Amino acid sequence: MVFKDFEGLKAALGTRGKKTAAVVCPDASALIALARCQREGILDGVLVGDQKSIQKNIEEQAGILGDTLKDLPVIHAPDPLGAAYGAVECIKRGEADLLLKGKLETSLLLKAVVDKKSEMRTGRLMSHLAFLKIPDHHKLIVLTDSGMVMHPTLDQKKQILENAVDALRKMGYDRPKVGVLAAVEKVNPDMPETLDAQELTRMNRQGEIKGCLVEGPYSYDILMSRESAEKKGVESELAGDPDILLAGDMTTGNILGKALVFSAKAEMAGIVVGARVPIALTSRGATEAEKYLSLILARSCA
Amino acid sequence: MVFKDFEGLKAALGTRGKKTAAVVCPDASALIALARCQREGILDGVLVGDQKSIQKNIEEQAGILGDTLKDLPVIHAPDPLGAAYGAVECIKRGEADLLLKGKLETSLLLKAVVDKKSEMRTGRLMSHLAFLKIPDHHKLIVLTDSGMVMHPTLDQKKQILENAVDALRKMGYDRPKVGVLAAVEKVNPDMPETLDAQELTRMNRQGEIKGCLVEGPYSYDILMSRESAEKKGVESELAGDPDILLAGDMTTGNILGKALVFSAKAEMAGIVVGARVPIALTSRGATEAEKYLSLILARSCA
Repeated sequence: MVFKDFEGLKAALGTRGKKTAAVVCPDASALIALARCQREGILDGVLVGDQKSIQKNIEEQAGILGDTLKDLPVIHAPDPLGAAYGAVECIKRGEADLLLKGKLETSLLLKAVVDKKSEMRTGRLMSHLAFLKIPDHHKLIVLTDSGMVMHPTLDQKKQILENAVDALRKMGYDRPKVGVLAAVEKVNPDMPETLDAQELTRMNRQGEIKGCLVEGPYSYDILMSRESAEKKGVESELAGDPDILLAGDMTTGNILGKALVFSAKAEMAGIVVGARVPIALTSRGATEAEKYLSLILARSCA
Repeated sequence: MVFKDFEGLKAALGTRGKKTAAVVCPDASALIALARCQREGILDGVLVGDQKSIQKNIEEQAGILGDTLKDLPVIHAPDPLGAAYGAVECIKRGEADLLLKGKLETSLLLKAVVDKKSEMRTGRLMSHLAFLKIPDHHKLIVLTDSGMVMHPTLDQKKQILENAVDALRKMGYDRPKVGVLAAVEKVNPDMPETLDAQELTRMNRQGEIKGCLVEGPYSYDILMSRESAEKKGVESELAGDPDILLAGDMTTGNILGKALVFSAKAEMAGIVVGARVPIALTSRGATEAEKYLSLILARSCA
């Protein structure tokens, strides 16, 4: 399966039944996003945070929420770090299947997640997946990593790649196509990312990276435009048709992702994967629409 | 002065009179682009390359070229490297003011340009300027360097920045605004490009980099969206309004430029600056429209 847009991804969730999101420090937008998922039969929730402030938020948004969230369990935690620990405890006890970040510093949430006692780690690196619907592009593009791992080594790139492939396979992709991004398609020892791309391609061919097709180094135009690939004489299944773009480092990924959102008007939502459960983690000031999409993503691979 | 698009840049050339382009190994698209500039009173040309093949190209394009290029001087050079040397000799003798790359390997053209005997170097690094007209964006954006300097040091970044500023000031900009790109707006020792950005900002404030406004590190959204800058509490003349984006390395610049062209549908043209004269240098398979715009750019800062 391959998804044209977020609607397609959501439609594929239809028959999978409900899971439960633990919402850490739920603010109005997180509550509205969760309520929408609940109404659509996709998610239930556990609300973890300061009980009074949660109650206040629910009352203030009553016009939008209606009765949706009224019967959800609330776990009281007076401070944000306590709420983060409370939420991972829910996961540990099997009471929730994914996390949604509300109004707290990302670092606090991650502190609880990476704590050994939380048993949230899997031995895998944690990494960020940005799902992008670029107008007029024929499918969703997953960009990784643009938010978690600054300067990945080859081994870390392998983990980032496998995190993305695992998530997409859980979402229903059969064999995600991974394009390893560089400025050029020729391997050049002066550009270490091209050497890593070659090595990741080899690992995939020799069965060390499974369940996907990996090729690179490729320039952005070869990956994103079949016409450009043809002009340059590149024949590949990846040409114009990747599912995943693997960036050489976080800064490149970050700038690319933001250029797609702010200049190409792409719709974007992100999750963090590599822990025991996916984390719907949006940036400061994310709207409820972004949080909703992020929840859809997390639910799709939970 | 600031330019909304390529038309604006061209209009500003109106009163400046003709200059002369030395065209190295002119192919059909280079000839058509030059003829258009000639008809518009912007450029004359000198054609450098294999005389027979030039004659043949002109005859084959007679329908488009008309009589435009008939009286232009032709300097015969049987091979591409010879043509490159022939063209830089024209510059040296004062017979041409800029170079246009026709059909030859970029490396051969640059070999002649960087040869000490050619006297084309200025002591400055040579760098690439990509001019981008992003749909709905209110002004041209100049991205540098996305094609010449792989891993610039701080001093090289300073030269790349100064090359861009010099070119824009020749084009009529009063005080170009330079945003130094990174993933974040906070300086972080683990992200060397943020340290370089801070240092370039300091150099500008203390008068070591003149004639422009330099600020960074800034994320792409802060630079390209005033709304995003406001949300993040960034108040700056640069917010949403840079003229120049300085990339941390060539790969980042390359991927960003291609994303803007292939996903944001930006119109792009590039030149190489830092040598004694600007070089209109387009990629393999560039159309005459791209070569024409590149000539306009080179003429604008020659």
